[in-house]
Amino acid sequence: MRAVALGGGHGLHATLTALRAVTPDVTAVVTVADDGGSSGRLRRELGLLPPGDLRKALLALAGPDTGPWGEVFGHRFGGTGALAGHAVGNLVLAGLLETVGDPVAVLAEAARLLGVRGRVLPMSPEPVDIEADVTGLGADPAAISRIRGQVAVATTPGRVRRIRLCAADRRSEPPKACAEAVEAVLGADVVLLGPGSWFTSVLPHLLVPDLHDALVRTAARRVVVLNLVPQPGETEGFSPEHHLDVLVEHAPSLRVDAVVADADSVPTPERLRQAAAALGAELRLDRVAAPDAADRHDTAALSASLARAVATAARR
Amino acid sequence: MRAVALGGGHGLHATLTALRAVTPDVTAVVTVADDGGSSGRLRRELGLLPPGDLRKALLALAGPDTGPWGEVFGHRFGGTGALAGHAVGNLVLAGLLETVGDPVAVLAEAARLLGVRGRVLPMSPEPVDIEADVTGLGADPAAISRIRGQVAVATTPGRVRRIRLCAADRRSEPPKACAEAVEAVLGADVVLLGPGSWFTSVLPHLLVPDLHDALVRTAARRVVVLNLVPQPGETEGFSPEHHLDVLVEHAPSLRVDAVVADADSVPTPERLRQAAAALGAELRLDRVAAPDAADRHDTAALSASLARAVATAARR
Repeated sequence: MRAVALGGGHGLHATLTALRAVTPDVTAVVTVADDGGSSGRLRRELGLLPPGDLRKALLALAGPDTGPWGEVFGHRFGGTGALAGHAVGNLVLAGLLETVGDPVAVLAEAARLLGVRGRVLPMSPEPVDIEADVTGLGADPAAISRIRGQVAVATTPGRVRRIRLCAADRRSEPPKACAEAVEAVLGADVVLLGPGSWFTSVLPHLLVPDLHDALVRTAARRVVVLNLVPQPGETEGFSPEHHLDVLVEHAPSLRVDAVVADADSVPTPERLRQAAAALGAELRLDRVAAPDAADRHDTAALSASLARAVATAARR
Repeated sequence: MRAVALGGGHGLHATLTALRAVTPDVTAVVTVADDGGSSGRLRRELGLLPPGDLRKALLALAGPDTGPWGEVFGHRFGGTGALAGHAVGNLVLAGLLETVGDPVAVLAEAARLLGVRGRVLPMSPEPVDIEADVTGLGADPAAISRIRGQVAVATTPGRVRRIRLCAADRRSEPPKACAEAVEAVLGADVVLLGPGSWFTSVLPHLLVPDLHDALVRTAARRVVVLNLVPQPGETEGFSPEHHLDVLVEHAPSLRVDAVVADADSVPTPERLRQAAAALGAELRLDRVAAPDAADRHDTAALSASLARAVATAARR
């Protein structure tokens, strides 16, 4: 089974770790809009794709037994100097991007080093900026403010209404899609969207025109995995069904086959079922949260849930 | 044939590149006293072994066909930011030193990645400081000033008289030797010292007590390779024979089997022959400079010269 998982950050790490147990043929398609932390510093200093989410996806698909290279990729320099906070894997990816060039070849090389099962691709070969319309920042509660950048959007105290993407160095144009990511979506048996920071890691893929079109056209089963808890900042106070409403607003022509949510994280299951049905999707309520941490998926439970969602979707 | 080459920087790179064509069993034993450039910044910021000379030795033994990893190891970040000037390979070695710990294991891992033929070891498992007695810095030309650090010694406008080594974090004690380097010297068929910055890359090995003792005791043939041109700064105006005098002053009990020098770089061959004889060594004058650059060895010529020196030494 060919699976494609789209997302970024910790949410994508959870899906990839779970998918790895379901099929060996996983392609991660990763957001490249990060402008914070080690990735943001590298992006600003060297003008490169932000590598952090790519690194996390590589490590998720490499699994736990990567030996010293997995450990060194994830290691962050400490102290208070110029390198403090940089993940070594980010610096390696930055070096490969400057020498090898093509990000697809760069990620294939890093994947070989780490013994990755599957493939990691950027959603776009160029760095991307997120821009958001936000309410609640000024005196007039209905006034819309425009904010820019993943960190600004992810942490806004306002309410995010809508996001847009643009190529970082061609501000008036939408980003190009990674051609291999488009092909992967078109050739997949199943495509997963989420979980993750909704506006800054999940929805961006739908705003890259060629990737959006591939997601709409693909014969793959489309599965949306909802978050366990609302993200403080960008989706503070958002109900599970509101996550789906926002998805529809950003990609009205997208149909979905299954929506997977944690049974204990859904206060009004009937409303969620209706929101899922409006997208064409069956709702699957499973217990997928880790027993000891309500904000983290249990890998084995998520694996099992995804396997069932995919099997059911395939029969419909 | 088991060969061990001791040195650092460009000189060691030349020997290793030449030796690689002579035998597959080469061990590089590398100075760890650097406090300048990318290495110096890493050493100060993270308290690690300076990685630059180790990286250069790895790349020399990896040869020209290392693929993308060789290129990325040698690549330096540009620009004017926090990373400018750092070689990616230095950052990778720093990350490995912080996660794996043992420098011998770190270098074995990096060697595997780069497809190194042979082995690279640090002369000491801990960073080392060079201290030098220098004359000519003040009004009294005979007055001795004490300066500290590889950069300070390598670039002093004064005349270096003597150097000492100490462990960087135990200033009153000499550095420990890398145990594997001591073993390699004791088990070698041939040991090469030089070429390179005489005081800051070549002599330091003789001032690590256990390494000095191994160099004195080993049954290996000992070959000293002289520089093509005096180093501006530390050996400005030094004749070839004075290089050997300095060697004797720093390690009076060391015997040498052969001294290799470039025929065109020796103004007074008879004096050099006498200085070599005082060490017990035969002088070999060969044409080993690159035809287009008098300050650089010709790899093929140096290979051939080393092969002859080793063969002759073995017959004596």
